[in-house]
Amino acid sequence: MLPYTTRLVIAYDGTSFSGWQIQPNSMGIQLLIEQALARVLRLSVRLIGSGRTDAGVHALGQVAHFRHEKPVQPIKLLHALNSLLPPTIRVLKVEPVHPRFHAQHDALGKIYHYSFQLAPVPNPFLAPYTLQLKGWMDLSLIREALTFFIGTHDFTSFANEAHRGSAQKDPIRTLKRLELVECGDGRWRLEFEGNGFLYKMVRNITGLLLEIGQGKRKAECIPALFAARNRCSAAMAAPAHGLSLIEVIYPQDSMT
Amino acid sequence: MLPYTTRLVIAYDGTSFSGWQIQPNSMGIQLLIEQALARVLRLSVRLIGSGRTDAGVHALGQVAHFRHEKPVQPIKLLHALNSLLPPTIRVLKVEPVHPRFHAQHDALGKIYHYSFQLAPVPNPFLAPYTLQLKGWMDLSLIREALTFFIGTHDFTSFANEAHRGSAQKDPIRTLKRLELVECGDGRWRLEFEGNGFLYKMVRNITGLLLEIGQGKRKAECIPALFAARNRCSAAMAAPAHGLSLIEVIYPQDSMT
Repeated sequence: MLPYTTRLVIAYDGTSFSGWQIQPNSMGIQLLIEQALARVLRLSVRLIGSGRTDAGVHALGQVAHFRHEKPVQPIKLLHALNSLLPPTIRVLKVEPVHPRFHAQHDALGKIYHYSFQLAPVPNPFLAPYTLQLKGWMDLSLIREALTFFIGTHDFTSFANEAHRGSAQKDPIRTLKRLELVECGDGRWRLEFEGNGFLYKMVRNITGLLLEIGQGKRKAECIPALFAARNRCSAAMAAPAHGLSLIEVIYPQDSMT
Repeated sequence: MLPYTTRLVIAYDGTSFSGWQIQPNSMGIQLLIEQALARVLRLSVRLIGSGRTDAGVHALGQVAHFRHEKPVQPIKLLHALNSLLPPTIRVLKVEPVHPRFHAQHDALGKIYHYSFQLAPVPNPFLAPYTLQLKGWMDLSLIREALTFFIGTHDFTSFANEAHRGSAQKDPIRTLKRLELVECGDGRWRLEFEGNGFLYKMVRNITGLLLEIGQGKRKAECIPALFAARNRCSAAMAAPAHGLSLIEVIYPQDSMT
């Protein structure tokens, strides 16, 4: 095992990338950072993220780690990486961590925000970061529905099948917090905090909540949807561009 | 002459457009709005803007007018246009105005903001809207230089040659206000208010001010640059994406 592990905290505007993970024929954020690391460190490293984000999804605090043979100077590495990366990807922190730190396995939880705007004339500068909706929506219906999701559930009905090679066996997850927060100018966001999220779970729950707000579905149908354990019953996923990974939570002692 | 004139106030994220004006083989914002107007009104109209903005330049309050034979319902037209336009272009207002109102000729002045960020790790979500700079900058040097530009001058040295067919003969302009405003998180903006601006004048002045802040030029050189009446003497234009047209100012009585 290599003696050093370094953790990166990364923010990105996901608009023009194909998501975190390396995909055939497309520009993954992970690959871009690996290429920058390879140029700076003059050796090839494998970057492990806390989890992938889909194409178009943004991040304010994605976390990733890599292991290496020789010590690195965090501040120097931070500036060197940012000078090589496109301006819509920024490494916010470079931190030495315990050699056994693992960005995915050690994560205790994650916080995601899903942003939407209800305005007769939505703000064009928010279009890449916010789902813009028109027409009637009753936010009190959404608020009532939130409580059905909080707690520990089998979220199969709200998960898409993961890509090959990343099968998720256990569909039980705990959603600690799910709140609807007003942000002004008709902007709202759903704040999700959980111990882990199945593939597309945040977008699938958001899609249903928005349909409930629009009066297309009733909150009372949620227990039956959970019980069905079948993705087909639930609503469409909300579009990727409203979603941001805000924070990945680790135990306090993961620093060296 | 057609009996009705309608004024549009328009905001756009200029990132993915080729600028306001129709250009051969490229997507001008003016053309996109004309096409939307044609679909809604079922007749072809000519939209006249207060002036063009270059590719990548943003607008919070671009103004344009068109003349028409039959009255229109402003609120209906506003929503119809926004439903046809891409989400990064929004019509903010549709207003009936005096039949002789002219968005370009009646403008008394304009306000532009040029935004930049000085931060060790710039915000990736501001990258399309803000020039992100690293390294040393002395903002007090910029503040001292601002006063050289305020007032009425021949701005030839700070204007690029306009495109064919839009020759600007008189290079005398009055800059009423030029201020450096702090916006937090290392973000700053230059606020320009003037009775009119020559082609690329805001970006050329900004380019020089930034070089002065970086210590590459001295404010004392500005009178000689004005006197040279020669674009070649001055600094490079600052990049388009930091610039936003904030407001076009008209006489109070231009409404019907």
